[in-house]
Amino acid sequence: MSDQPLTEAEIELALSELPGWTHVGDKLEQTWTFDGHLRALAAASAVGFLNEQRNHHADLTINYNKLRVSTTTHSAGNKVSAKDTDLARAVSALLE
Amino acid sequence: MSDQPLTEAEIELALSELPGWTHVGDKLEQTWTFDGHLRALAAASAVGFLNEQRNHHADLTINYNKLRVSTTTHSAGNKVSAKDTDLARAVSALLE
Repeated sequence: MSDQPLTEAEIELALSELPGWTHVGDKLEQTWTFDGHLRALAAASAVGFLNEQRNHHADLTINYNKLRVSTTTHSAGNKVSAKDTDLARAVSALLE
Repeated sequence: MSDQPLTEAEIELALSELPGWTHVGDKLEQTWTFDGHLRALAAASAVGFLNEQRNHHADLTINYNKLRVSTTTHSAGNKVSAKDTDLARAVSALLE
């Protein structure tokens, strides 16, 4: 999968099919809320397996019952690439 | 355990027995580095059980093979209390 940064138009098009994801600071981000802390941790572990499968590691932040997933592509100059939109689709398919 | 904010002197004393922890922005923080992403996730889950035991939930941030643990006491006006130093001791005892 390409490490080329996507254009703003390409990102907008991808986001139109990724409900809940936002493009903030050259990252794609979404925050999920769960029924308690341990469920948020379990979700983080599940997303971690997607990260490992792709060798593309989104940052994961757990605040009590919330999990924020934030992905950017270091090899694309810390911009959003197809690796991020692909990961975002996989995370949404897993958690929703 | 008291929700009273600790004084700066009390925090300094506590940190003298908490190697690696720093007092930053009214939080106690430490970052650990593991052998890979899944080990960092496993460590986050383990710390999560300590959070649940104490009903005091440190923020957990996973960046590839790093886990940052950051704890403050909302009921102490988002300052460091004995709940944070107690949790920091427990996390260090678990991870080190």
